[in-house]
Amino acid sequence: MTCEFKTIALIGKYQSPEVAEAVLQLANYLRGQSLNVLIEQGTASSTGLTSGFTVASYEDIGAKADLAIVLGGDGTLLNSACRLAEYEVPLVGVNQGRLGFLTDISRDVALEKIGEILDGRYTAESRVLLDAEVLRNGRRVFHTVALNDVVVNKGDLGRMIEFDLRIDGEFVYTQRSDGMIISTPTGSTAYALSANGPILHPDVDGIALVPMCPHTLTARPITLPDRCKIEIVLLPPHDSRVHFDGQTRYDTRAGDTVQITRSPHRVRLLHPVGYSYFAMLREKLHWSSTPRHT
Amino acid sequence: MTCEFKTIALIGKYQSPEVAEAVLQLANYLRGQSLNVLIEQGTASSTGLTSGFTVASYEDIGAKADLAIVLGGDGTLLNSACRLAEYEVPLVGVNQGRLGFLTDISRDVALEKIGEILDGRYTAESRVLLDAEVLRNGRRVFHTVALNDVVVNKGDLGRMIEFDLRIDGEFVYTQRSDGMIISTPTGSTAYALSANGPILHPDVDGIALVPMCPHTLTARPITLPDRCKIEIVLLPPHDSRVHFDGQTRYDTRAGDTVQITRSPHRVRLLHPVGYSYFAMLREKLHWSSTPRHT
Amino acid sequence: MTCEFKTIALIGKYQSPEVAEAVLQLANYLRGQSLNVLIEQGTASSTGLTSGFTVASYEDIGAKADLAIVLGGDGTLLNSACRLAEYEVPLVGVNQGRLGFLTDISRDVALEKIGEILDGRYTAESRVLLDAEVLRNGRRVFHTVALNDVVVNKGDLGRMIEFDLRIDGEFVYTQRSDGMIISTPTGSTAYALSANGPILHPDVDGIALVPMCPHTLTARPITLPDRCKIEIVLLPPHDSRVHFDGQTRYDTRAGDTVQITRSPHRVRLLHPVGYSYFAMLREKLHWSSTPRHT
Amino acid sequence: MTCEFKTIALIGKYQSPEVAEAVLQLANYLRGQSLNVLIEQGTASSTGLTSGFTVASYEDIGAKADLAIVLGGDGTLLNSACRLAEYEVPLVGVNQGRLGFLTDISRDVALEKIGEILDGRYTAESRVLLDAEVLRNGRRVFHTVALNDVVVNKGDLGRMIEFDLRIDGEFVYTQRSDGMIISTPTGSTAYALSANGPILHPDVDGIALVPMCPHTLTARPITLPDRCKIEIVLLPPHDSRVHFDGQTRYDTRAGDTVQITRSPHRVRLLHPVGYSYFAMLREKLHWSSTPRHT
Repeated sequence: MTCEFKTIALIGKYQSPEVAEAVLQLANYLRGQSLNVLIEQGTASSTGLTSGFTVASYEDIGAKADLAIVLGGDGTLLNSACRLAEYEVPLVGVNQGRLGFLTDISRDVALEKIGEILDGRYTAESRVLLDAEVLRNGRRVFHTVALNDVVVNKGDLGRMIEFDLRIDGEFVYTQRSDGMIISTPTGSTAYALSANGPILHPDVDGIALVPMCPHTLTARPITLPDRCKIEIVLLPPHDSRVHFDGQTRYDTRAGDTVQITRSPHRVRLLHPVGYSYFAMLREKLHWSSTPRHT
Repeated sequence: MTCEFKTIALIGKYQSPEVAEAVLQLANYLRGQSLNVLIEQGTASSTGLTSGFTVASYEDIGAKADLAIVLGGDGTLLNSACRLAEYEVPLVGVNQGRLGFLTDISRDVALEKIGEILDGRYTAESRVLLDAEVLRNGRRVFHTVALNDVVVNKGDLGRMIEFDLRIDGEFVYTQRSDGMIISTPTGSTAYALSANGPILHPDVDGIALVPMCPHTLTARPITLPDRCKIEIVLLPPHDSRVHFDGQTRYDTRAGDTVQITRSPHRVRLLHPVGYSYFAMLREKLHWSSTPRHT
Repeated sequence: MTCEFKTIALIGKYQSPEVAEAVLQLANYLRGQSLNVLIEQGTASSTGLTSGFTVASYEDIGAKADLAIVLGGDGTLLNSACRLAEYEVPLVGVNQGRLGFLTDISRDVALEKIGEILDGRYTAESRVLLDAEVLRNGRRVFHTVALNDVVVNKGDLGRMIEFDLRIDGEFVYTQRSDGMIISTPTGSTAYALSANGPILHPDVDGIALVPMCPHTLTARPITLPDRCKIEIVLLPPHDSRVHFDGQTRYDTRAGDTVQITRSPHRVRLLHPVGYSYFAMLREKLHWSSTPRHT
Repeated sequence: MTCEFKTIALIGKYQSPEVAEAVLQLANYLRGQSLNVLIEQGTASSTGLTSGFTVASYEDIGAKADLAIVLGGDGTLLNSACRLAEYEVPLVGVNQGRLGFLTDISRDVALEKIGEILDGRYTAESRVLLDAEVLRNGRRVFHTVALNDVVVNKGDLGRMIEFDLRIDGEFVYTQRSDGMIISTPTGSTAYALSANGPILHPDVDGIALVPMCPHTLTARPITLPDRCKIEIVLLPPHDSRVHFDGQTRYDTRAGDTVQITRSPHRVRLLHPVGYSYFAMLREKLHWSSTPRHT
């Protein structure tokens, strides 16, 4: 039986000595398996692994890699997933610290688990991405994708913002609040959860809108079908900001529209056999912990 | 052009003089349009409309009616929808008091709006139903359908209950709480919302699990794909109860399993042209009300 | 220096073999210190410790004991505290399982910590009690005290109840809900917390009103000065129940008034030196646990 | 009987033509009553009322006025209250738009109600103020008072901040969140309420700590006795900001401590006879609105 994965890209968290070491170890392991190894450019320069391995841009990785292994935390994986979104390269996450929601292989069993995945023993799942753009006077001035969330919030002055929400072109409400989180199921266990948003199972075709400190107490989180077009029309006088996966941001102006749709691309995550979404929730949310009082 | 609705069933809230009058007025109106009118049995005896119109059981209505018009509140419509679930007769709701989430035609414009619907000018939507059964020692001891929610909660003693949650056969967690609401999108704006559940747009293929006063503070509402099988396994020592749409209930024993799946049937709701889910939310949740403080 | 505690009452959780053993061990230890030991009647008969020690009713304990040591969980301590409320006997709680909010001495260090307390090395704090009565046609039909909370909730039928809230004789609102928790600071970390109530530090002179699944989404928890008179006037048609510390309950009828005031008595809790309310919260609420995601 | 109020200061919202007119009308009315009228400096220049009336600084008003009447919204009153805090001049609030929580006299009955207050027919209440300071390397770099709240939140980068909470010198927890609201009872119905904080009756001697989007899901609002010293120690690497009543702000650095205590001063608010805190809550929170669904 031949391995379906022949070219493997390695992407590591930048500026982290432990990650550098783990990348090197994994690269050697993969080479030992006669696989082609690509080291992501920034990872290579950050870790010093610039010689002996093929250094590749995200575009190269997208074009050539059969699998991308991300070493770091959930933040690193979010970033890689978005950079590789249009190429749909499958991703595996190896956490260097505590397990993440997305980086669910712990470093001490990384070689073993990756070996199994390379052998074809894995569980695959596909996650929705958001396509987000900022429109100004009808023109697109910014565009990106997000795997977790798009967060529209108050800007420099720190005052509540005001915006209209439109769904598929229909006016829904005007809201005055600290902002709004537009979250995928993947993002529903991240920032949105801190803002009292609902957990969405990754197989629910929904997008959660979670108001942040809304002025009107009846403004509640709402989950929409993910095929909706969501528009946030920012009202004067306040400026606001849009954050994408907590990684990049864009300063919007009153009058701008932030438009969000489901991306045509999806992220393919590979997990070791035995992976369970509910087991992960239990672990991360301490659901297995003993009851609070007697 | 011929009307698609030839036989119309009328179902009214029991024991309500205003409803009796409205049923009579509507029956006469429909007869004036040369339509066949069926008066639901219980409605007929409750309103005294037993002569002059054909009295019909829910089974008859299911077999013969092209449309059922429900006069009352959301509770009356919930009940009718479940009784007629397997026949998939389309439903129209006329509210006799304040507008409901489901009974969205107000009584003062009822004749006009129903006339429009009979003329084919309407918006149809389809709502998911839950199939719920109670299993005892592997045998089904109770079965029903619910359009809003299945609520498992504490019984007579009023103590917290304990149960295992299983999704598609997989153990998720043991929870100690006042109970759990398993809600459709339709039910997400009813009782589940009072328990801090998320609003689910009717087109989201999801079912919300909303814990009630959970002992563990990290137990949060979670939305699952509606094709899941949800099992609540009741643990000793406490007895508990299951409520279906707040209309019927069943006293369960420790060891019983409450099993919930999406029903193969759906409820078809007809609305007047111009109906908007978001407008209804705005109205019911006072989203259009002015901000709270200045 | 003479010990201020000469007569010590022991109260244990009923029907628990471990507690029986711990009571005996502690009784012997205290006798070895030349102290008078009283075994609470029910504890004595439940543990079989009926000979060799003085068996005493709660009234006797109230009259004679300088200190009551409670072995069990928070529930046992709540019960003892209310039974002894009018006598203001100081209480110490020894937990037989996991630490409680109130029973903060763990069994394995019990003798050592109690020794210290007997030596005068302890921290004392005083907790507010609620005086609760049910009035029917102006007559008191039930009266008790509660250390944690008074919970008015729906009764047998399991339907939402409706009631008027009055504070110091002034109408505040009519609420339709599953019920209302009236909680002391002590109770604010118990059931009220599960219902999204605020934590009240024991030194705050406040009583929290926490609505349970209120129909109106703007009904929020409110903290009142503890010198207020709180009245819940139960409206027809539904019957309801009142629970006191989750230990006793009373079935109320429509028209009854549940009236709550601060008791003239307080509970005096003794803690080992080094006790910290915040440390206890940290422990019980897992505040010291590492952050959720990275 | 002589009026206790001989010198009346008028303070109006700046840059508002309606307020300017109302200030003039009120000033003439008061002069007609043979009272001394002081127009606050900024109000005077903003309204153009610089001749014919005595223009006074806040210091002058503090020294001479027996009463200050504030025309505007709650924001204007918050600002005036803090400016006049140390002088303890009683305040009356006249709202120019919708009624506020603090500005509870509506403009159309303003002259009549103020006439009554001048005649001695009023209800007085006293509200706690917070004393807030920012300490850097042990030195105070900023100091102010706040009537509603002190909000520590994330700064320019928009990332979660991390801080230690200390109460009376004791470490409570390290929190990672969007920030923390430290609110008086007065502020508990303002921003803190949007962040799910508890309502505190003005007579509760408490300060509410309300975490904003805390990373740890068990971080809940907590109410402390208002005699506590509260310290927020900002941890690297992120900068943060502190907002006082949503009116002024200070950019803090990692390592700074925000220290909050109850101010020795209080704000004295005068209300027309018949004022009711609960009636105001009912009005502002729509508690009187009819139930949500049937």
